[in-house]
Amino acid sequence: MKNFNFYSPTEFVFGKERENECGQYVRKHGGSKILLHFGSNSAKKSGLLDRVKQSLEKEGIAYVELGGVQPNPHDSLVYKGIEICRKEKIDFILAVGGGSVIDSAKAIAMGVPYDGNFWDFYSGKKPATALPIGTVLTIAAAGSEGSGDSVITKEDGMLKRGASGDCIRPKFSILNPQLTCTLPAYQTACGATDIMAHTFERYFTNTQEVEITDRLCEAILLTMIKETPRVIQDPNNYEARANIMWAGMVCHNNITGVGREQDWNSHGIEHELSALYDCAHGAGLAVIMPAWMEYVMQHDVMRFAQVATRVWGCQMNFQHPEVTAKEGIIAFRRFLSSIGMPINFKELGAKGEDIPLLVKSFGIGEGETGGFVHLKKKDIENIYTIVLNASL
Amino acid sequence: MKNFNFYSPTEFVFGKERENECGQYVRKHGGSKILLHFGSNSAKKSGLLDRVKQSLEKEGIAYVELGGVQPNPHDSLVYKGIEICRKEKIDFILAVGGGSVIDSAKAIAMGVPYDGNFWDFYSGKKPATALPIGTVLTIAAAGSEGSGDSVITKEDGMLKRGASGDCIRPKFSILNPQLTCTLPAYQTACGATDIMAHTFERYFTNTQEVEITDRLCEAILLTMIKETPRVIQDPNNYEARANIMWAGMVCHNNITGVGREQDWNSHGIEHELSALYDCAHGAGLAVIMPAWMEYVMQHDVMRFAQVATRVWGCQMNFQHPEVTAKEGIIAFRRFLSSIGMPINFKELGAKGEDIPLLVKSFGIGEGETGGFVHLKKKDIENIYTIVLNASL
Repeated sequence: MKNFNFYSPTEFVFGKERENECGQYVRKHGGSKILLHFGSNSAKKSGLLDRVKQSLEKEGIAYVELGGVQPNPHDSLVYKGIEICRKEKIDFILAVGGGSVIDSAKAIAMGVPYDGNFWDFYSGKKPATALPIGTVLTIAAAGSEGSGDSVITKEDGMLKRGASGDCIRPKFSILNPQLTCTLPAYQTACGATDIMAHTFERYFTNTQEVEITDRLCEAILLTMIKETPRVIQDPNNYEARANIMWAGMVCHNNITGVGREQDWNSHGIEHELSALYDCAHGAGLAVIMPAWMEYVMQHDVMRFAQVATRVWGCQMNFQHPEVTAKEGIIAFRRFLSSIGMPINFKELGAKGEDIPLLVKSFGIGEGETGGFVHLKKKDIENIYTIVLNASL
Repeated sequence: MKNFNFYSPTEFVFGKERENECGQYVRKHGGSKILLHFGSNSAKKSGLLDRVKQSLEKEGIAYVELGGVQPNPHDSLVYKGIEICRKEKIDFILAVGGGSVIDSAKAIAMGVPYDGNFWDFYSGKKPATALPIGTVLTIAAAGSEGSGDSVITKEDGMLKRGASGDCIRPKFSILNPQLTCTLPAYQTACGATDIMAHTFERYFTNTQEVEITDRLCEAILLTMIKETPRVIQDPNNYEARANIMWAGMVCHNNITGVGREQDWNSHGIEHELSALYDCAHGAGLAVIMPAWMEYVMQHDVMRFAQVATRVWGCQMNFQHPEVTAKEGIIAFRRFLSSIGMPINFKELGAKGEDIPLLVKSFGIGEGETGGFVHLKKKDIENIYTIVLNASL
């Protein structure tokens, strides 16, 4: 096991109707005048935003509203948010929405106290400080409510890049599974795929003997395999929604990834798809992740056989472990298809002729990526080609 | 799933030689003059205390030493610690040791800013504030390094009682698995048993449909079943030590228990044994926990069958689930015996004639305990009687 630090100081406030307490938690964590950041009109229409405002007003917390965050959030709104926060002397940001809203809030939070361009943090610079943020989560997917990560798309060139730092971990996050019951099945399935992908990206590692982290990853995957079909069938199943929502946080606050190398290449390869086609991140992951697995499987057949037997319930083929390993990948792709996810370029709405552009945009030139298996330009192209032709 | 809050703001600093950084973490978390709290001479002899002092001195942090914490820590040393902290204007407590030292530090931390007797917090009162504490952990067992709990024994009457509160969660905890390699096999096994018990106490619940928490519990148990025999056989197996040490924290910071009722009766029933005989807490749990399981199994046979199949690898007997349920309990007792734990009164050094005293001391009178199965005086007596006669 490698040395590591694990620091997840977020206060999680979980359960029915807990958004009505958000004013108290803003107060507890030091906010007095906040930026109320949200996305489309759904938070307004559903009455959620009104309940949040009531709770804030009850605590005497002033707020300035900034809505309009889009999926795959853009830098233009971040600049606007930073300007508002400085002008209005905002001391806390409350994000009401999903991963996109929270990631946008994190970008603003880093930008406000920073002299330079906030994009520096999405180009490798580590943030030293940020405004405190809190969240009211409305979709189980990105895990941003419990993570120190944020992903933003730069409109100039449609570059989708990430930033990380403990200072952008939320002070509190309110998770009410009821808020996710109105999500369409497609979005629900995209979120579930994202959660599983966050787990797999941590599962495939070259660091040996980290059994506890393997087992925690498997705990998330087994939960998702059980609960996701239930919410696709019955969107109002609170218990299943609750299990998925908590799994989404646990898997991405990094307790499922400590002590070893991780591999985030599938996320990187997917980001090019959602940047180019503006497709849902989860849908992009659904096509990329099994293809990446097929492509790298030979690197550690026993690890793939382990997940096939422990998670997908395959019988171990002791004479031919690669058969079991492959069965696990097939089971994953079938599962994704069964919950309504695309499995190839056509189903996603992507085009084979764009592959050269996607590879170029991935931006490693003649270099290579790190991770479980190092990938060069040709490998990225091969993975997109597997996706192009994938079938059940 | 029940509504819950989960708040684990401790910074975990994990890995080889990390104790050499303790000065930096004391500084980072606001300490300038500290109480250096520890137990017996082993921390001195091993050189650990010297390394800790060097790190403190390097950061210019002043310290006052208070050693002598015993297993099952007593209130007398807590009073002494409170007095020293007040007199010396201590602003941070660093506990170097296992659960006993950390629990003693937590008691002192609560007592310093409190006007009344610190024992109030061990009699049901909730602490509002406490001095900040940090830890350098030397044994994987109690989980106190990541929990908001503390257990102290009052010498007058040998009452062993617990206190809880977020304010006593450590600011940081340094976990170096190397420090546990010198532990004797018996103490190692006691620690492992404690970790498994902390998981089981959360596993047996009447709250249905909390799959994610079930799975996280099972992740801990599967890890312990794999890794414990390896460290008993080879005390210097760093990887196995590391997995156990991290599992001990994860299982007791309560992420394995959120969203549902828990049952801590086995801990309560055990506390009477370690208070009366001063035996190791883990050894006491080894005899109590399987006996408690046998006694309450009929309350939810399917839950016991679930753990038997998922954790102990038993084949499910679909016609007679109670057979599988029982097999899981037998497997647990055999496992405990295989790592050198006692399984009955004789092996523990307890006496059957003390049962009436143990039952009386448990202190529920004509009332009952809460939890998975409510227990009355007669039930407690029956459980001790199962232990008296237990065999493999």
